Order: sequence, then structure tokens, then C-alpha cells
Amino acid sequence: MAVGDVMSELEPEQIVRLEEDGSAVVLLDQRRLPDEVVEVRCATAGDVADAIREMVVRGAPAIGIAAAYGLALAALRGDDLAEAERGLAASRPTAVNLPWALARMRDDPTPERARTLHEEEVDRCRRMAAHAADLFQPGTKALTHCNAGGLATGGYGSAVGALRTAAERGLLDRVLVDETRPLLQGARLTAWELERAGIPHAVIADSAAGSLMARGEVDLVITGADRIAANGDTANKIGTYSLAVLAAHHGIPFYVVAPTSTLDRETPQGSGIPIEERDPAELTSRFPARNPAFDVTPASLIAAIVTENGVHRPRYEESLA
Amino acid sequence: MAVGDVMSELEPEQIVRLEEDGSAVVLLDQRRLPDEVVEVRCATAGDVADAIREMVVRGAPAIGIAAAYGLALAALRGDDLAEAERGLAASRPTAVNLPWALARMRDDPTPERARTLHEEEVDRCRRMAAHAADLFQPGTKALTHCNAGGLATGGYGSAVGALRTAAERGLLDRVLVDETRPLLQGARLTAWELERAGIPHAVIADSAAGSLMARGEVDLVITGADRIAANGDTANKIGTYSLAVLAAHHGIPFYVVAPTSTLDRETPQGSGIPIEERDPAELTSRFPARNPAFDVTPASLIAAIVTENGVHRPRYEESLA
Repeated sequence: MAVGDVMSELEPEQIVRLEEDGSAVVLLDQRRLPDEVVEVRCATAGDVADAIREMVVRGAPAIGIAAAYGLALAALRGDDLAEAERGLAASRPTAVNLPWALARMRDDPTPERARTLHEEEVDRCRRMAAHAADLFQPGTKALTHCNAGGLATGGYGSAVGALRTAAERGLLDRVLVDETRPLLQGARLTAWELERAGIPHAVIADSAAGSLMARGEVDLVITGADRIAANGDTANKIGTYSLAVLAAHHGIPFYVVAPTSTLDRETPQGSGIPIEERDPAELTSRFPARNPAFDVTPASLIAAIVTENGVHRPRYEESLA
Repeated sequence: MAVGDVMSELEPEQIVRLEEDGSAVVLLDQRRLPDEVVEVRCATAGDVADAIREMVVRGAPAIGIAAAYGLALAALRGDDLAEAERGLAASRPTAVNLPWALARMRDDPTPERARTLHEEEVDRCRRMAAHAADLFQPGTKALTHCNAGGLATGGYGSAVGALRTAAERGLLDRVLVDETRPLLQGARLTAWELERAGIPHAVIADSAAGSLMARGEVDLVITGADRIAANGDTANKIGTYSLAVLAAHHGIPFYVVAPTSTLDRETPQGSGIPIEERDPAELTSRFPARNPAFDVTPASLIAAIVTENGVHRPRYEESLA
């Protein structure tokens, strides 16, 4: 195992990599964190697609990166590239980073291209974090949802990257972390990343966020994104929309932090974003259940969208263009 | 075991009772439902207080009833009644039904008095359900939170009682059930009660409620209450406040159904209601966590409060008086 216990930040290659000998794409198994730090080896692009579908790796930028390595793996093996790309593209529907990364690999499906794409995504995270930290005041109490950390982006993180940079600048009091049912990416992954970064935090039930806003315990809400339409409507983990409505009700700014690889300029507004419905058994297998994995937050509820290019304010049609 | 698997409604004495021979208060263990249908025998009032604290029995009216039986048990045993009452009163802080029931038992701590109190609470449920069902239109799609069912009231239920009566009148399309983290009273208890009642339902993550409102899948939100201040501010399971804000944002009525034993006329407004903080380990024992068990919904967000006396509208200072 390459992942140590004492470091404060995961190296990008500990989250997702193509082995130097080209034998496999190796993923840190995010389903088993934080209890177990183990890796999954994917010997084919089909294995990578399965791992994305089963959420061994998750987070919009990270699944784009994994798919890029998957296509490079298929090319090294001499597999049918069109078939490999179809399988990877179909693994999950909502994050636009997946087709974005595959399109960037199409004319040069090499390990070098995939590694460059990975490095560029992590570099975008550091740049957008620097912009997003400008939104923090000394003593800021932040709330975040799901995991928009290094695990979600292949390194450093989007919203969690902003929290890291704000903490380095001495602007962060502490972070409330929505546990994020049903798969608990907040309670398992974000809390783990914040602990390693030495950032004070507390996990809360998703349903407690509104009450804690009413008590004055939240100065800003900050999340990542899975797909941002041209008008700024943003698909992200289920529950993000509720947080945005609650933030508006309490006069608290709601910020989205995401690299430009998450922008979908072909989709004019949120109603055009496909929303994945996952297995209801993730909630309960005893009773009927419904399990939409994402929701869409209208641009009108988003105070700013931060990319590596800067802090974008409404109207997003213009500021993101 | 007295609880069968095929009946549609639990008998009150299956939820909480004092044994005929006066040897114990017997509680259906709500922590283990729906996987196991088992009872807990409490041989002393202290055992009953422990069972309330540990949520063997929960729900504001039900813990009042359990405490009444506990005081009758102490009297039968010749125990110190003042001490028994103190222990029961201290078991949980938020539901006002606990001190209400104990005060009603003080001058006559007999099994007969406790059984009458229990019967009267269930009768109140049936009466308020009839009033609340008047708020439903044909084809109503309802959303509820936590468990305000027979398990919570000693029989029939408050909000779930309203759903039962609305269904009997042919007015209910189906119910979305918030799973209600961290203890999953919705996913475990409400879904179980609705299944037994033959009412169509689907469990959802608490964080999905807002998104489903936005999709037009919720016509009304209906919950119970743990304590209602004189002005109508209502303490209920954590997450209720968020639902009320989300309902207001979407123009959906938010209704509270509770017997008059839940009214606290001595407390002018919600800020005076004590909010229980429970063990963070209910959420996670791996990371720091915060676990407020209740929140307060301001009267301004509540379209109606339904008691056995009828449908009360704002201003609640007058309509509840």
C-alpha cells in the first residue's frame, strides 16, 4: 500500500494512476475509506468503467481522470478504442467531466496524455482554491456537502481545496460536514481529508444543516459540482439544492467550486442535465425507496461559481462564457 | 411475542403496557424494528427512564404514556414516588408530554389512571386524524419525516394517523418517507407502519426532499411534534425545520399534527424549548460530530397545527389558546 497514515495530503498518484509498466489502472477504493486504505487494480478499460459505476472512484474530475487512464490502458493493450470509450462514457451519466476527458484523449490515447490531463486537473484545483479563498473572511465557519476533496478531483480538491487554502491563510474557523446519505461521502471522505489536513470539523446529519444555519453557525456554504450548464445551473450530489435554498433563506452565500472541465456549454440550463437514479438498496432493501443521486441548483441561488479562471458572478451566461 | 406480522395496525398494548399482574412495564423495542419484533420488560420506574433515554420507546406522546405506566409501577412496588418521577422527568428534555403525563399521574398514580391516559391519547389521535384528513385533496402526494405513527403515540399515530384516515377516505396517492438520520425512524418505523397499513410509500434520503418538491412530487408536508410553544413555534425531530423552509420555498403547505398534550402554554416561543443534544456516536465515532436531536420550526412557516380539537390556523397564540 502506497498510502501512508501520517501525511496531510494525498498525492495524486495515490488516488488514481496508470502503473508505470502499463499493466493496470490503480484506484484508491473510496468505498472502503476511512476504515480500510486499499487499492483496486483495473486490468482493462471495462474494469475501469465498472469501478466508476460502483464508485470505487467518484467525484466528477476524478472519474474523468480515471476514464482517461482507462482509455490509455485500452490503447496499450491494443483493445478496440471505440468500444472502450463507449463503455467508459456510459458508466455514469451526470458528471460532464467523463465525456470531456474522453474527448481530450481521442486523438492521443497515451499514458503521457492521461498523466498530463491528471496534472492539469490538480493544477486547476490549486488555482481555483486560491480564487475561492478570497471569499473567506477571518473566522469563517463553512459548511460543505459530499466530498469535493482530493479524492474527488485526483488531488487537492475543489471545495475542500478552497477550505485548505483558506485554512493556510488563517481565514477558516471550522467546517461543518454534511454526512451525505446514502453513501456518506462527507462522513467518510471529507472528514478524513480534513482530519489529515488538520482542519477543525464536525460531521452533522444532512437534515441538521438548516437548524445550524438558523443558529448562526454557518457563514458560507461551499460545494463542488458534477455539471454546470451554460446559465450556471449546477448539478451536484443530492441535497445540494436543499442547502442552496436554506442558505438563501438565511442570507448565507452559497458557492460552487469546480474546474472548467465541469462546465457544459452545450447544455443551456439545468433541466437538460441527466440525473442518475441509483439503486434504492443504497438506502434500504426492506421497503420501497427512491434514490436520485444528484439534484440541480438553479443559478439564481448561487452567489458565485469559482473556476481556475477566477470568481464568476451572475449572470453566468456571460461570466462563464 | 404478542405482535403478529399480518395485522394492519398495532394495538396500543403492543406498543406500551403495564402487565396485568403489575410486574413490569413492557415496551415494544423500537430500536430493533423492523428487523426484529421484540419486547423489553422494565421492572422499575428507573428501568422505564433508561428505556426512554435509550429510545426503546420514542415519540412524544408515547414517552409520556410510558412514564405514566412507570409511575404506576413505582406506586405498586411501594417505591419513592418523588424519586421515580424525577428520574422519569429527566430521561429526555424536549418532549413536553413527559412532564404533562407525570403531572396528570401525581394525585392518582394507579394503573387505571395510566391506562386511561393511554386510551385518551389514542382517542386524541383518531380525532385529530379526522381533522387533518380534511386538509387532503384526492390524489394527495404527502411527505413525512421521522415517525409520527402509532409507535410514537401509543397507537394510531399523529401525522401517520392523518395519513391512515386520508387513505381510508381515498384521498392519498402515496407518501414519501424521509429516512430520518441518524436513527432512521422514517426508514425503519414509518415505512413499516405504512406497509402494514397498505399505504403506498417510498423511503428517500432526507436530503432528497427539496429536489422532489422542486419536481412537483410533494403536495403537502405533514409531521408530528415534540413540543409546541404558545405562539405555535414547534420543536420536532431534527430536519423538520429544513422541510418547513423548503416547503415555503416551493409554496407547499407544511402541517403539524399533535395532541394537546404536546402544547406547552407555559413557553411563549420556540427559543424557550430545550433542544436535546445526543451522542455524536449516533452519527460517527470516527470523527468529531454534532448531533442535535430536534430543531424548532417557527410558527410563520406552519400552515396549520392540527390537534384533537380541530385545525388551528395562525395566529396560533389565539387559535391554540
